[in-house]
Amino acid sequence: MQRYKLTLEYDGRDFVGWQRQENGLGVQQVIEEAVSAFSGEETRVFVAGRTDSGVHALGQVAHIDVEKETDGGRVRDALNYHIRHHAVAILKAEPVDAEFHARFSAVQRAYMYKIINRRPPVVIDRGHAWWVPQALDVAAMQAGAAMLPGNHDFSTFRAANCQADGPVKTLDEISVIRDGDEIIIRARARSFLYHQVRNFVGTLKLVGEGKWTPDDVATALAAADRTKGGPTAPPEGLYLTEVVY
Amino acid sequence: MQRYKLTLEYDGRDFVGWQRQENGLGVQQVIEEAVSAFSGEETRVFVAGRTDSGVHALGQVAHIDVEKETDGGRVRDALNYHIRHHAVAILKAEPVDAEFHARFSAVQRAYMYKIINRRPPVVIDRGHAWWVPQALDVAAMQAGAAMLPGNHDFSTFRAANCQADGPVKTLDEISVIRDGDEIIIRARARSFLYHQVRNFVGTLKLVGEGKWTPDDVATALAAADRTKGGPTAPPEGLYLTEVVY
Repeated sequence: MQRYKLTLEYDGRDFVGWQRQENGLGVQQVIEEAVSAFSGEETRVFVAGRTDSGVHALGQVAHIDVEKETDGGRVRDALNYHIRHHAVAILKAEPVDAEFHARFSAVQRAYMYKIINRRPPVVIDRGHAWWVPQALDVAAMQAGAAMLPGNHDFSTFRAANCQADGPVKTLDEISVIRDGDEIIIRARARSFLYHQVRNFVGTLKLVGEGKWTPDDVATALAAADRTKGGPTAPPEGLYLTEVVY
Repeated sequence: MQRYKLTLEYDGRDFVGWQRQENGLGVQQVIEEAVSAFSGEETRVFVAGRTDSGVHALGQVAHIDVEKETDGGRVRDALNYHIRHHAVAILKAEPVDAEFHARFSAVQRAYMYKIINRRPPVVIDRGHAWWVPQALDVAAMQAGAAMLPGNHDFSTFRAANCQADGPVKTLDEISVIRDGDEIIIRARARSFLYHQVRNFVGTLKLVGEGKWTPDDVATALAAADRTKGGPTAPPEGLYLTEVVY
């Protein structure tokens, strides 16, 4: 038996999210069926971070165990063949030790959130970005974001149905950059609470609009109360970009 | 009567191309119907460069004449309202002199062509880039592209059904840049022959694969014969990015 680390790209629009579900197709199911078609084996795919419906991945990581004698290049190409009708691709398949675990071995996860900030509607990036027509002040958003890094009780940015053990996490980094009409928000941490990045973005948008000051972000964080945070930004702007081991 | 210059973005996947056609929806029809809905007037929309089915625009330019008393901001917002169910947006609507003509006043057009060069299939950029799985040598493509700028008979890169007066054009600039898996080819000229950019790209891909040398591009150009050129790259990688007046 050989364990393989898979690095995945997918378009969240085409799936109900990562997990197998009754109400539609999850990325997990597509990968598990492809592994069966390739190896004839029943496998379970373990993932670094489950993503919601509409959330994209540029560098999701999963692992599978395969009995069949093969190698990384063949695993990648065979799985890509079997999943070719779905909006998902295996970027890499690498043999790893049996101790490697996509979820538990990860030491950092990185997300990107893409806002298109202009009055005309989004066309080319439809489904791949959040359209915010009102002008956003990026300098203010940067000042608000600067309140967030570090070890905190992030309850203010935690969705009600979060399954994490507790609300205390260390946010390594968060940045806000404008490039023309695009505003890109990047965040890195060992792990995130459920909806944490989307709740950061929804809050920073309030700062960008001038409805909140940067200091209001610090106040909201200190309250450790979800009702004091901003709204949840929509899924279509969010990308899981990298998992570090 | 006031003439307005419109700057447009659209997703070529959703249209049979710019022009009104029997077999499906053209961007032209969507804009003309939106102008009627807004002003109650029958208008014809004139465009800087007709694009084929599947070809995208980030900065297409068109003009319309409107009798109704209004202004640029209202024209932009009203047209965007009426076209909201289609993958097209009016980025700007600016009042211009009656002498302005979207096609005949243009002094330069700029196109971008996007290749995703990696073995795994394209996911997020599906329909928005050309997937080339075999490794391409960008330095060789750059050397091949360097054979093209200047005033030449470009018959080698001209589609059979081109309606231009003649095959002689001046290519102001062509560049090839790699950024990770992306290869971006940009070209600028007063005007282009039909399929000229896609034929450049199909030819430069042969150079990138090592099937042609950069000098073969110069030989093909000098032949002034379409049968000596490379194949036509697919439409989904092509974007009309800017029209200069």
